[in-house]
Amino acid sequence: MNFNTDLASEAVDTLKSKNKTFKDFCNIKLIETKVDANLSKKIKKKQGDYYLIDISNEDINDSESLLRIEKFITKLLKKILKKEKINNESKGLIVGLGNLNITPDSLGPKVIDKVIVTRHLFELDKESISEGISNVCALSPGVMGTTGIETSDIIKAVIDKISLDYIIVIDALKAIDINRVNKTIQITNSGISPGSGVGNRRKELSKDVLGIPVIAIGIPTVVDASSIAINSFYNLMNNEKYQDIFNKYHKLKQDFKNQIEEEVIATYNSNYIVSLKEIDIDIENLSEVLSGAIDHALHF
Amino acid sequence: MNFNTDLASEAVDTLKSKNKTFKDFCNIKLIETKVDANLSKKIKKKQGDYYLIDISNEDINDSESLLRIEKFITKLLKKILKKEKINNESKGLIVGLGNLNITPDSLGPKVIDKVIVTRHLFELDKESISEGISNVCALSPGVMGTTGIETSDIIKAVIDKISLDYIIVIDALKAIDINRVNKTIQITNSGISPGSGVGNRRKELSKDVLGIPVIAIGIPTVVDASSIAINSFYNLMNNEKYQDIFNKYHKLKQDFKNQIEEEVIATYNSNYIVSLKEIDIDIENLSEVLSGAIDHALHF
Amino acid sequence: MNFNTDLASEAVDTLKSKNKTFKDFCNIKLIETKVDANLSKKIKKKQGDYYLIDISNEDINDSESLLRIEKFITKLLKKILKKEKINNESKGLIVGLGNLNITPDSLGPKVIDKVIVTRHLFELDKESISEGISNVCALSPGVMGTTGIETSDIIKAVIDKISLDYIIVIDALKAIDINRVNKTIQITNSGISPGSGVGNRRKELSKDVLGIPVIAIGIPTVVDASSIAINSFYNLMNNEKYQDIFNKYHKLKQDFKNQIEEEVIATYNSNYIVSLKEIDIDIENLSEVLSGAIDHALHF
Amino acid sequence: MNFNTDLASEAVDTLKSKNKTFKDFCNIKLIETKVDANLSKKIKKKQGDYYLIDISNEDINDSESLLRIEKFITKLLKKILKKEKINNESKGLIVGLGNLNITPDSLGPKVIDKVIVTRHLFELDKESISEGISNVCALSPGVMGTTGIETSDIIKAVIDKISLDYIIVIDALKAIDINRVNKTIQITNSGISPGSGVGNRRKELSKDVLGIPVIAIGIPTVVDASSIAINSFYNLMNNEKYQDIFNKYHKLKQDFKNQIEEEVIATYNSNYIVSLKEIDIDIENLSEVLSGAIDHALHF
Repeated sequence: MNFNTDLASEAVDTLKSKNKTFKDFCNIKLIETKVDANLSKKIKKKQGDYYLIDISNEDINDSESLLRIEKFITKLLKKILKKEKINNESKGLIVGLGNLNITPDSLGPKVIDKVIVTRHLFELDKESISEGISNVCALSPGVMGTTGIETSDIIKAVIDKISLDYIIVIDALKAIDINRVNKTIQITNSGISPGSGVGNRRKELSKDVLGIPVIAIGIPTVVDASSIAINSFYNLMNNEKYQDIFNKYHKLKQDFKNQIEEEVIATYNSNYIVSLKEIDIDIENLSEVLSGAIDHALHF
Repeated sequence: MNFNTDLASEAVDTLKSKNKTFKDFCNIKLIETKVDANLSKKIKKKQGDYYLIDISNEDINDSESLLRIEKFITKLLKKILKKEKINNESKGLIVGLGNLNITPDSLGPKVIDKVIVTRHLFELDKESISEGISNVCALSPGVMGTTGIETSDIIKAVIDKISLDYIIVIDALKAIDINRVNKTIQITNSGISPGSGVGNRRKELSKDVLGIPVIAIGIPTVVDASSIAINSFYNLMNNEKYQDIFNKYHKLKQDFKNQIEEEVIATYNSNYIVSLKEIDIDIENLSEVLSGAIDHALHF
Repeated sequence: MNFNTDLASEAVDTLKSKNKTFKDFCNIKLIETKVDANLSKKIKKKQGDYYLIDISNEDINDSESLLRIEKFITKLLKKILKKEKINNESKGLIVGLGNLNITPDSLGPKVIDKVIVTRHLFELDKESISEGISNVCALSPGVMGTTGIETSDIIKAVIDKISLDYIIVIDALKAIDINRVNKTIQITNSGISPGSGVGNRRKELSKDVLGIPVIAIGIPTVVDASSIAINSFYNLMNNEKYQDIFNKYHKLKQDFKNQIEEEVIATYNSNYIVSLKEIDIDIENLSEVLSGAIDHALHF
Repeated sequence: MNFNTDLASEAVDTLKSKNKTFKDFCNIKLIETKVDANLSKKIKKKQGDYYLIDISNEDINDSESLLRIEKFITKLLKKILKKEKINNESKGLIVGLGNLNITPDSLGPKVIDKVIVTRHLFELDKESISEGISNVCALSPGVMGTTGIETSDIIKAVIDKISLDYIIVIDALKAIDINRVNKTIQITNSGISPGSGVGNRRKELSKDVLGIPVIAIGIPTVVDASSIAINSFYNLMNNEKYQDIFNKYHKLKQDFKNQIEEEVIATYNSNYIVSLKEIDIDIENLSEVLSGAIDHALHF
């Protein structure tokens, strides 16, 4: 099994699990995956609720589409925040993971550039704040290669210094299926797992580790070249037209099949990433959508 | 045969041709491919001399490596210019093809931002110009999706307006082998062919079309996802360990083999491009090297 | 008189001319200045109609404000185009003057990045074009320091190559009064004059020179440091409180006064430009507004 | 007196103080200003040693000039670090203050992007580290308007979390004299004062507040428009040619003179900043020089 994905929904696809439900909202689809203790071991994702918003039928270069997507995320985010008992009175920190100078890894920092922050106004000029506005701050801690500091250490340091009730983390993710790149948004209450994200974040960021709810919002912006390789191999082997030609393969034991698959995957290491030509423009539009949705979910 | 490459050397690899010669210069290798009328038809590249500089043993993040590469290109470029009878007295135009806003397609415009231009000084203040400085101007015409004008029309218009003796075109290319991405530089006197470059340039830019020598300098910055797919398929089929499992495939007629290969290639269209994580930094360094080499080859 | 401005309205302010009319549209004001042959000599601006849109009462960080400004410009632009007999059937070229790498000079190229172009669709796939869409292309020719080519030569070359009925030129301008920076938009049918713009464009771009109507849209993004100096000097001299202290100055002949003013102006050369802290964000917003207004004025 | 400057040397110029010494090193000049308790009150700068490196005779677009400047700063920085008892064994944090999205305020974050960090290697792979390499990490905390968190709180939080021996802070400064913009570098052991920098940093960053030495490196990238106004006023008043015309002003009491000066200064608030046209390119070059000098001063 190829687990080169940060999407719980993709990881589950390889099992015949019943943990997924689908809903259609016109052009936008929602796939819920509940990862319980049992499933967590199998797919190596942390326990929690994973929501995958499929926007592949929307056009992210069209302003009306973007507005529809933003409204959908706003509504879902509000529901998730409510479940975690986060309200107008709660104090939040929005963290943008990733490297601004590497386009497919820049989603997090770009959202932080755009999101509305209010914490300083609560400190300096509380009277000026309208009703419904909640207390929010934001941080782009940078990546370890640039700072020399473990990202989770910076976040923990800030949490220890200022009082906070919850965290929203934004990160660029990896998918297996290239058709999900820049076309799906995953929201989960399970936080960030080690090894996930375009940058292979090193440490967990979750309620277990930080002591407060951690909502993670991610968009797959790349797939590994090895996912392309293995995917095209499966496609060919499963093609009915060629069943006869490859029948010896089909008769192999699963162990031996897995060995071949591993060899295909090993052709390309994780430095070779596949993204779309329009990645710069997509990231700009998607960061606008996410920051808008967060603003609307948190205030009034 | 997969011709999803702008590198003549890669295209030739599939034939058992004797048109290639190799030379080693310490860390840097030079591969010359002469494409004559006969070979031109087979590999669908325009006739001409193609030089492929292999810098995979250099580190493009190291300033001493960059200097070595720059000197190597300078020397080769001087030789090519001399062959085309271009000297200090010739008037040149350097054209940067591509889209500044799409990172792997931004090589050309970035070189234009950095290269030294002198044509306006020749017009406005000829006395101020030292001996050895030649008359050079530069242009980033943009891409058709942004301008609505065929790029070659803009270049032809400028050539008609100002008197010029030669053109140097810079473009970001496609390779088949991912190990050549950002690690090879192709220089050719054959210009730019239709369909080449990251942006699939639409029209030929060559001496035949423009009437003056056209030297093209290109660096592969991407491979098609389909090249990843077909490459991993070849790898597996050619793996001796699995000869027996796939023996039915090996016994197929070439025509049928080709049909399977085409199907593998067709899985991914050309919107899915594979590049390296460090593409932004690589393009910055490589555009610095190319502009330096052009400056040193044209002026002293 | 200080003519360090590209705004006809500012140049006229020093004369007691009746060539200006004012209109109020809620938050937005419109000042029309008709420059006839006589006035043209006095203020050293080309003859024509100059419209100055004053948006100082709008907030260009607010999306509703931006929409109001865009609609206002659209309407005015439609009126001006109609006067010049430009309609749906006319073929236009939008030119963005300036240097993308110098923030206050980047307005023109940024508009070109955003504006809709259709000329290539008319050439390649005419059937796909809806009614009301007009034939438009766009160009960022770059600046002479980067290209070595006189900008007007590139534009003339393109006009000679492709058939066109009108040109819209976008440029970043200089004002005298800092309060107009990023807060006013000038539209004129007189084109671009030599010496104007942040980059001191060298040659005229007008109907006289190019043979087709040239609508220029400009926004002052800087003032000269010398304008700050002379403005503060006038302020002080005209301050009633200090009339007595400076009475010897007030009694000087105009010639001698002019000499002093020239000395004040000469303290700072034109390399010292004054802009606002938020210039990067302002240019982003204003280029969005201009490209939107042009799109809406030209299509349907 | 106009204290709209972060340069101690400029602040001292208005006094007839003996606290300054000058040294010439070919093209580069060094001005040392010792601010003691007494002087500190007068010029409202924190006590400490202030070094002003004058590079106005060098050309920051020339690579040899840049190398000379880098070597000079390296040497001076080593001397200052030694005085503060900082050596190879000490653990340092480099902080880049400012806003990456506002060009004249982006110096700090740009240096952080370029500087070498090693702290993570000491933690993860200590054996790989050569002798002479010291333990350094880096942080761009962002500005309060974007994060909602007081910058000094983020820095204090990180200091509390990871053990550190010293801090180097990089910031873009304000000068009074426009000729010092991008042409001088101030290094001081007194840290950052409230109200300093392009962004008017709100809180002190110093040994007193943070408990460890704080070396501040700053480059003036702007002057206030009010500094232009007052400077041109002084120029005119001190011009011998016009002594007679303005003799009533010269006879005024100092108190009344000060009142007039305050009025001139008040014409322009601090949103109007004066910078150079080439600010984008200058910041790129100067951030390269500073990061290089810091790398060379800290390692081997």
